[in-house]
Amino acid sequence: MAELRITGLGTYLPERLVNNRELPALDPPHTLADMDKVGVRARGIASDGEDVLFMALCAAERALARAEVDAESLDFVILANWSERRYVPDFAPRVQHALGARRAFAFDIGCACAGFIYGLTLAHGYLQNPRFSRGLVLASDRSTRRLRPGSRATLVFGDAAAAVVVEKDVARGSRLLDYELCTDGSQNEIMEVGADGYLNPKIKQRELNQLAGRSLASVSRALLERNGLTLADIDWLLPHSGTAGVQAMLAEHLGAPPEKTLNNLADVGNVTSASIPVSLDHFIKLGKLKPGDRILSAAVGLGWQYCAVLYTL
Amino acid sequence: MAELRITGLGTYLPERLVNNRELPALDPPHTLADMDKVGVRARGIASDGEDVLFMALCAAERALARAEVDAESLDFVILANWSERRYVPDFAPRVQHALGARRAFAFDIGCACAGFIYGLTLAHGYLQNPRFSRGLVLASDRSTRRLRPGSRATLVFGDAAAAVVVEKDVARGSRLLDYELCTDGSQNEIMEVGADGYLNPKIKQRELNQLAGRSLASVSRALLERNGLTLADIDWLLPHSGTAGVQAMLAEHLGAPPEKTLNNLADVGNVTSASIPVSLDHFIKLGKLKPGDRILSAAVGLGWQYCAVLYTL
Repeated sequence: MAELRITGLGTYLPERLVNNRELPALDPPHTLADMDKVGVRARGIASDGEDVLFMALCAAERALARAEVDAESLDFVILANWSERRYVPDFAPRVQHALGARRAFAFDIGCACAGFIYGLTLAHGYLQNPRFSRGLVLASDRSTRRLRPGSRATLVFGDAAAAVVVEKDVARGSRLLDYELCTDGSQNEIMEVGADGYLNPKIKQRELNQLAGRSLASVSRALLERNGLTLADIDWLLPHSGTAGVQAMLAEHLGAPPEKTLNNLADVGNVTSASIPVSLDHFIKLGKLKPGDRILSAAVGLGWQYCAVLYTL
Repeated sequence: MAELRITGLGTYLPERLVNNRELPALDPPHTLADMDKVGVRARGIASDGEDVLFMALCAAERALARAEVDAESLDFVILANWSERRYVPDFAPRVQHALGARRAFAFDIGCACAGFIYGLTLAHGYLQNPRFSRGLVLASDRSTRRLRPGSRATLVFGDAAAAVVVEKDVARGSRLLDYELCTDGSQNEIMEVGADGYLNPKIKQRELNQLAGRSLASVSRALLERNGLTLADIDWLLPHSGTAGVQAMLAEHLGAPPEKTLNNLADVGNVTSASIPVSLDHFIKLGKLKPGDRILSAAVGLGWQYCAVLYTL
């Protein structure tokens, strides 16, 4: 199979980052200590102007600049988004037009928090076609608009976008080694967005954490096993941020050493579809992640879609 | 590249087919003669129970039965839908669960009327992976819910679903030869679903027909040229039904002989994402299409996404 390389990564966080002291009052009220216990210190809350399209475009421009790639050379644009779904049209064609990616076909997918990884695997599929050599995969979510004001969820979620330029058979960039995709539709009713437009969980947070931890662990194990690897062969686990509880469950189920596990949930909240690339960008900039590092990233999205990718930086 | 074959096709039309005499009154009122001139004699109007999921499942079961394929053997389920978008979860995981397609990953795409063809190309991409050999591509739309009651659009659109089982490198079934995908995001604002949930065109019908005709013709020509073919080498043109005006424009732009052009718009209306497979099923059952026939199908979706596939039956 043709090899997918990520040659440019760009992210966007809203101008307004809100810490726990500044967060609109919760109902019932929480002490600052209780809020801090949740494990998120700050989250971006997008303004009216910072919608899914705007954030996606900013991230895309940064990714293209880092890859030193011209938008006109893109063969496709795939955008994952769950928080601002429209009937018609999709968002991706608007990104395509705004970037001037004239040759690119463009479309949206859902997949909730699994959107970035699913999008990457779709790109991998298209890159097997001799006609396509370069594309853009985006994840952009303004999840805070899907939260009941004052709910505990407003502590956890944040808004963000991320974009990656993907190319095939080039000698540079991060290399996709393998991926695993799973879906368990029997869990489709555990959370939905109600008629009021707000996320409505029908499962206790503890159960959700357990289910997510189990799913992330099982898909990670399957991917490692197929590639003849163990956790010892991986430099970093960089999973979807989810919640601190999900992270704890994943570590428990997988037996993952905490020093190998990275996520920036504390700094930006759960930025849903964008969480893995936003986290990657964060730790690359900090110098924690280095070229050549072997990384395993797993994500789970309400649906219930869970997935993992194995790659070298 | 691995070859995609369609080994089973299933469709679903609502129980209630409404002819022009039975159609709820239009505003302003139309004579029956005026209504007949639009070119749609009947359209399915789905009941509350016949939602996107229900219709998709019925079509899926028929497709699996025709392919003589067990749902448990499916590697993936891809569902195109624009008319009942949800934030979370996607519909495809619910189809996966209801069918018992335990091994399959599942997700939704948008793409409006281009959804079936885009879905087919995604399947083609996944089938290039040695691990995947079989999947299900669905298109299911209850478009009549997106139409202002009494509007002229209620004359044109109908509800339907279709499903195809796709397999790779098998000796049976319809064979995908090549495909072409294009997007022109500059046209993204010509029609949208407003806050009332109804389709709101911002372009004159005549202009829309011309644009759609031009787009369908250009993508069809590009596909033929790349494959060293002309219209003379094609047995049938079976485009997205759209409207009678779109069909006329396509024929004009492409110079397509009317006797080679098939669509069942008159019988079911514009069934949006499902139109090409619904039309295929219709003409296969009529005995008009025969195994081995070489067919070109093009579609255009509000977005603006246009695409074409070349295949033998």
